[in-house]
Amino acid sequence: MAYYRYELTIDKLLESGARTFPNREIVYRDLRRYSFQSFTDSVKRLVSGLRKLGVKKGDRVAVIDWDTDVYMHAYYAIPMLGATLHTVNIRYPPEIILKTLIAAEDKWIIIRDEFLPLLEKAKSLLPSSVKIIAYSESKEPVKGYVNFWDLLNEDPTEFFDISENEQATIFFTSGTTGDPKGVWFTHRDIVLHTVGTALTFSRSPTYITPKDTFLILVPMFHVHAWGLPYVALINGNKYVLPGKYDYGLILKLMEREGVTFSAMVPTILHMILNHPEAVNYLNVFKNWKVVIGGSALPEGLAIKARDMGITVLAGYGLSETCPVLTVGFHNGLLENEREDIKFKEQITAGTPLPFVDLRIMDPLSGELLPKNKIGEIVVRSPWLTREYYKDPERTSDLWRFGWLHTGDLGYIDDYGYVRIVDRTKDAVKSGGEFIPTLILENIISLHPSVSQVAVVGMKDEKWGERPVAFIVPKGNFNENDLRAFLKEMVRQGKIQDWWIPDRFILIDSMPLTSTNKIDKKVLREKLGK
Amino acid sequence: MAYYRYELTIDKLLESGARTFPNREIVYRDLRRYSFQSFTDSVKRLVSGLRKLGVKKGDRVAVIDWDTDVYMHAYYAIPMLGATLHTVNIRYPPEIILKTLIAAEDKWIIIRDEFLPLLEKAKSLLPSSVKIIAYSESKEPVKGYVNFWDLLNEDPTEFFDISENEQATIFFTSGTTGDPKGVWFTHRDIVLHTVGTALTFSRSPTYITPKDTFLILVPMFHVHAWGLPYVALINGNKYVLPGKYDYGLILKLMEREGVTFSAMVPTILHMILNHPEAVNYLNVFKNWKVVIGGSALPEGLAIKARDMGITVLAGYGLSETCPVLTVGFHNGLLENEREDIKFKEQITAGTPLPFVDLRIMDPLSGELLPKNKIGEIVVRSPWLTREYYKDPERTSDLWRFGWLHTGDLGYIDDYGYVRIVDRTKDAVKSGGEFIPTLILENIISLHPSVSQVAVVGMKDEKWGERPVAFIVPKGNFNENDLRAFLKEMVRQGKIQDWWIPDRFILIDSMPLTSTNKIDKKVLREKLGK
Repeated sequence: MAYYRYELTIDKLLESGARTFPNREIVYRDLRRYSFQSFTDSVKRLVSGLRKLGVKKGDRVAVIDWDTDVYMHAYYAIPMLGATLHTVNIRYPPEIILKTLIAAEDKWIIIRDEFLPLLEKAKSLLPSSVKIIAYSESKEPVKGYVNFWDLLNEDPTEFFDISENEQATIFFTSGTTGDPKGVWFTHRDIVLHTVGTALTFSRSPTYITPKDTFLILVPMFHVHAWGLPYVALINGNKYVLPGKYDYGLILKLMEREGVTFSAMVPTILHMILNHPEAVNYLNVFKNWKVVIGGSALPEGLAIKARDMGITVLAGYGLSETCPVLTVGFHNGLLENEREDIKFKEQITAGTPLPFVDLRIMDPLSGELLPKNKIGEIVVRSPWLTREYYKDPERTSDLWRFGWLHTGDLGYIDDYGYVRIVDRTKDAVKSGGEFIPTLILENIISLHPSVSQVAVVGMKDEKWGERPVAFIVPKGNFNENDLRAFLKEMVRQGKIQDWWIPDRFILIDSMPLTSTNKIDKKVLREKLGK
Repeated sequence: MAYYRYELTIDKLLESGARTFPNREIVYRDLRRYSFQSFTDSVKRLVSGLRKLGVKKGDRVAVIDWDTDVYMHAYYAIPMLGATLHTVNIRYPPEIILKTLIAAEDKWIIIRDEFLPLLEKAKSLLPSSVKIIAYSESKEPVKGYVNFWDLLNEDPTEFFDISENEQATIFFTSGTTGDPKGVWFTHRDIVLHTVGTALTFSRSPTYITPKDTFLILVPMFHVHAWGLPYVALINGNKYVLPGKYDYGLILKLMEREGVTFSAMVPTILHMILNHPEAVNYLNVFKNWKVVIGGSALPEGLAIKARDMGITVLAGYGLSETCPVLTVGFHNGLLENEREDIKFKEQITAGTPLPFVDLRIMDPLSGELLPKNKIGEIVVRSPWLTREYYKDPERTSDLWRFGWLHTGDLGYIDDYGYVRIVDRTKDAVKSGGEFIPTLILENIISLHPSVSQVAVVGMKDEKWGERPVAFIVPKGNFNENDLRAFLKEMVRQGKIQDWWIPDRFILIDSMPLTSTNKIDKKVLREKLGK
């Protein structure tokens, strides 16, 4: 017989976990519990059931659900069939969801009954061959659909060998403009992301061991919940699934299940800390380690969390990067510094994981820049998407110069931590140098007569571009007053003289994108040509 | 431009380490120190120097050295040239060393001056094209040879991309019979072994973090010093190189450099604990975590180590497995048990690493057996050798039924820990069941009239095989007395009735192999036919 080539496939995470931590639990709300061993068995039953139903290697299977035990089954069973898990963003409008179902060429949809209305209109537009598997919380069949729970009655099958280069997952990410772009990951991408992330979280200040319990508040439709449902299994961490987010229940689950580790966007941390019940959970918070990503962690929120006893740090990544690239763990330059310096750095965008080669690039020349120089953040790593699905043009833009372009502008500070200053497309480049609009906006917003501010670039013959600030004023706005304030900020070394905007334009309200971010594209259009 | 496929090559370990822990040190005795950053630079200079000298992709480069900073350079630089590092076992007799140099088709030899006499005789038998690079501790040139240190004066080059499936290392392992067998590993094998091992050591009871300092007492010619020179870089661990082992100096280095983690065979731990200076280092031992492998960890030695404050655990692996398969870390079944139970299990052969699928197989039928059944230990993992070099026959034997055969007989206990009871070729199978000769020999050796004992199998028409004990007696040996003692052991549940040997054969001394193990092959021959 011959050498067995061990492929880096997702079943290996599950099997390693079940073998080493058979009694570790997966908990869905206060409703259902599985041991790693019984979960593995259940996933194998689902593989059988789906195969019997006709799901084949190469099929795409969409899942429309909250963060449930059903979703957790899908994370493992669908890729192990050699099929692709399509995690559908339930926050999109129905029309966009339909677009992504069509773009992914989904053959199957697994859906929680409460989302069925969302699919009703769409159904007639989907190919008639698309089959729908529905489930209800009570496990009662949903009339007119295959019952998901019945699939778990099949005999478990062993997993079969597939290539680590098979597509395991696909999902769609919307820019602020244009159609959603499909990004996809192979088994290998996900397995390597899992070990890179697990290694990182074992370090200071999170020191994750198999005794930590995870409750992840990143939706499972959002870049594999940052990969943590996979990390939990290989690493032996009890995993608590919250279903649809209910912060009162979440706090109760945290206490009852002994949660010690979570990940989420800043808004959710804000909601938890400001929940009326939060003050009753300080004993839970003091053992709680929270990684923040998705957008910048505001220092005020970080301090509030710290003061409530929470170990808080930030990370950074994109849909295109599986997603984690950097985390605010303590690297060799930081580990012996004072606590306040450590804290300040751990809430930046973080420092690269093992196997992440993150650089700062001059976006025009492709030249790699040294520490403290601002440029576009580009990366190489074994877990990046190889393409935008069926979109060679945007793919070649994503991968120009052989590096994945994050579209974020930033620099690497003296300690080796990433500081993000802007989105590339929002950047203002003046006299060959970038003006970090995020920093500039923060400073301008400190002035008492400014309610909201957005800085965009205006074409300039001499400088290439010059900054213009759109301002929603409050009280008596006086431009000279603001200019004087900004000059003082220059004196204090907070901003540079040449960053001060040429013009301040007052508006009644900011134009917003569908995800409630300020739409700078509209602002630039206001400036005309 | 196109997607960059990130290969799992050894340079990624080095670059990740230098980026994240630039000031972490590599220390060679009390002689030379490098930061990870300066070491990386130095490795890049060596790559330049070797390339300029003519070392090419595909070349094999032998290294003959103690555990030095020169060797550490070779671990990274040679594979990064696309060449293969041949780690020469300096404990072999010169004739065998020569055989391995010829078998590996080495084109280059890097050698420490004190080993040159060993090469003198061999030189005339090597192809004349073989080039020798020598070095002295003082960095003075060694007359007649290229000076290794000169190679470090070249300008550093960036690493270039090579496939993760390139051969990175080769070495030769001797069975007790036959010619040394070549086993080799790719970059991918080594990188995945590195992350699997790093993840494991971050768990209880070692809890390794980047603040731990390694001093590895497994020779660098022996299966990559169990991979720990690679783990140290990706994991950020200070690495202390002892050169030729001098236990007085080792104790001093441990204290001075703050060593907290080591790996070694039991004999070396025994030598350190019994060193006259050891009692002066109890403050060092209390922070010291030691992984024992290579042969079984005797319980008495483990207890002695524990009583001196050391955290001691065992591991298991082979040359063919890169090597680590199992380590006595605390899995989910053990973690909440009493301390004495944890201790007992952590000094067994250990429990499988993530990504190690270890099973017990009936060696004849290939059937996989359940817990507590004795059979051959077989494995699948992403870091196993794919073949014995140029030896298809022994390769197909190694990989029969698609599993790597360890040649060890054992079982998996209730906690999921591997218990090794025998070498397969020394096994005695009677009535279709294995008699674990290691356990049986241990029991027989407890009798006061037994100095040494070895049990082998004798052909038997009825039972297939029956056990025969060869005994070196002491005092007045009386067979009936010994049989009564063994019956008592059966009563106490220590052995089984049918394990009691049919015959006891007295001999003056045990025949030994070249590595001073009892040569059971000779004993079996004594039984005739």
